[in-house]
Amino acid sequence: MSDLYDVAAIGNAIVDVIAPATDAFLAEEGLTKGAMILVDQARSAALYRKMAQGLEASGGSAANTVAGLASFGGKGAFMGKVANDLLGEVFTHDMRAIGAHFPNTPLIGGPATAVSMINVTPDAQRTMSTFLGASVQFADDDVDPAVVEAAKIVYLEGYLFDAEPARRAFAKAAGLAHGAGRMIALTLSDSFVVERHRAGLLGFIESQVDLLFANESEVTALFETTSFDVAVEQLRQRVTLAAVTCSEQGSVILTQGERLSVAAEPVEKVVDTTGAGDQYAAGFMFGLARGRPLQQCGKLGSLAAAEVISHYGPRPQVSLKALAASRAIL
Amino acid sequence: MSDLYDVAAIGNAIVDVIAPATDAFLAEEGLTKGAMILVDQARSAALYRKMAQGLEASGGSAANTVAGLASFGGKGAFMGKVANDLLGEVFTHDMRAIGAHFPNTPLIGGPATAVSMINVTPDAQRTMSTFLGASVQFADDDVDPAVVEAAKIVYLEGYLFDAEPARRAFAKAAGLAHGAGRMIALTLSDSFVVERHRAGLLGFIESQVDLLFANESEVTALFETTSFDVAVEQLRQRVTLAAVTCSEQGSVILTQGERLSVAAEPVEKVVDTTGAGDQYAAGFMFGLARGRPLQQCGKLGSLAAAEVISHYGPRPQVSLKALAASRAIL
Repeated sequence: MSDLYDVAAIGNAIVDVIAPATDAFLAEEGLTKGAMILVDQARSAALYRKMAQGLEASGGSAANTVAGLASFGGKGAFMGKVANDLLGEVFTHDMRAIGAHFPNTPLIGGPATAVSMINVTPDAQRTMSTFLGASVQFADDDVDPAVVEAAKIVYLEGYLFDAEPARRAFAKAAGLAHGAGRMIALTLSDSFVVERHRAGLLGFIESQVDLLFANESEVTALFETTSFDVAVEQLRQRVTLAAVTCSEQGSVILTQGERLSVAAEPVEKVVDTTGAGDQYAAGFMFGLARGRPLQQCGKLGSLAAAEVISHYGPRPQVSLKALAASRAIL
Repeated sequence: MSDLYDVAAIGNAIVDVIAPATDAFLAEEGLTKGAMILVDQARSAALYRKMAQGLEASGGSAANTVAGLASFGGKGAFMGKVANDLLGEVFTHDMRAIGAHFPNTPLIGGPATAVSMINVTPDAQRTMSTFLGASVQFADDDVDPAVVEAAKIVYLEGYLFDAEPARRAFAKAAGLAHGAGRMIALTLSDSFVVERHRAGLLGFIESQVDLLFANESEVTALFETTSFDVAVEQLRQRVTLAAVTCSEQGSVILTQGERLSVAAEPVEKVVDTTGAGDQYAAGFMFGLARGRPLQQCGKLGSLAAAEVISHYGPRPQVSLKALAASRAIL
């Protein structure tokens, strides 16, 4: 089959509500800074009542990555589940507006479209409380074989390990992708997700994953170590290719033979780190799908991450293609 | 009655959908750059389908001004009409989250909450297509006398001249305000609004308005002249106090005796001019309500406008109180 897509992603279809918050607010609400917790609809509504004035934007980790890929000029597809409601319309609109293929129909008569309440502290860190709603109804039937088989890279969002039907969908997608000679990429998403599903994630990584994305806290959580170097060495033994992001220290790219360091792109003022990892993955996979050297893939990732943390909102607000061209990275 | 509020505003309760657009898109859609047109629900939906990926945020001109006032540490109230739907909840949440009093109950069984589709071109200009929905159901019954009589300044949004019941509400508010010795402020909102309601606006200004806000194109449209100086002189003869904004040329403050010029606050990169006039009015009225000299009122307006045009979204994303303190303007 021909390559219709650079990346086909599977993830939670979520609309974000983003608002500034104080550290005291996080403490009062029992929220761990930088992490994502799952909340039910009642808790979601109660938290919203207490949050500051915010703005709403389509989010979802893998969906943000597809948006970043599209901004580089890449061709993406996204599979995920929204409900038949206003936020579902917003999410669907935004996916189509970026030119991504979004084959899934909205859920009717079930829970509402997923919402993530994102509290951004003055240090620009984001803390997420997510009501998964319709997004966890994503099941193996929602995996479109034609889409998976036509993508150079099939990208899976680790957050979906929280939902049993989605884990089965991952297994289906991985089988289809490898059957068609495609690459499976996975992001670990969150250190709490890693804690909840360590064994399942390790098994999946060893058997199915060709490219792993993680940050420092996720990779150390995965191997239950406080040593970044130990974790990275463990990871190298298990995957062909990995990219580990380390915030302002840039990223480390691991292959069987080498360990490359990529500097972070300088940012004048970090406003909101929401989407940083998602955009790094977007740049990295755009480069990889287009056959660029790994160092350049990492630079594209750093550039995309730097853009998204300079403003509120989880997706790029400028053309990453033009931005990369202006910096001579593309 | 004691001063409970620095400003009580009456305006359209609107949620904005903000997205980047090209000049070619405006031309295809027959949109006049920088202006606001009214659309019905079908046209609103059709336009949304064609718009780029965007973000959603509570807007509405006078409501944005109340948000700016609150960001300076001022006490505001807002009167306007939302529907009993998700966007109405978002608008209401954001009004209460900024600490503003919002006495009106949502409309049940009528049109949806108002939405403004805002297309932002690369020159940062915003072009608005507004579906007024529930907001035009605002009527004189929705004017809370206790709120009007307890506000130092009662601020009216010119956009409401498009709705007959809202014009009656303005007349009621003006009567109540003047009966309580309060000041009535009006913004002209848009040159097309001025064209549609010139006679009505002039009559209202001469009989009721103590403080007028306008920009260059609105004030010249009001007096049917191409000369800014002619328009400004005409205006000075009709109101006690006026502030006319001139984009990067700053603003002109007119009193019976003088004409003050206030420089614009420099902005590194203008991203989206949505809300610039609203925030100018916020800063100006905060200063005025707190008894500051007119030059300082203008500077507070310029500062607030500069903040809001440096990012997407119609309301401040930082504390204007802290920003003004850091520049020694407060």
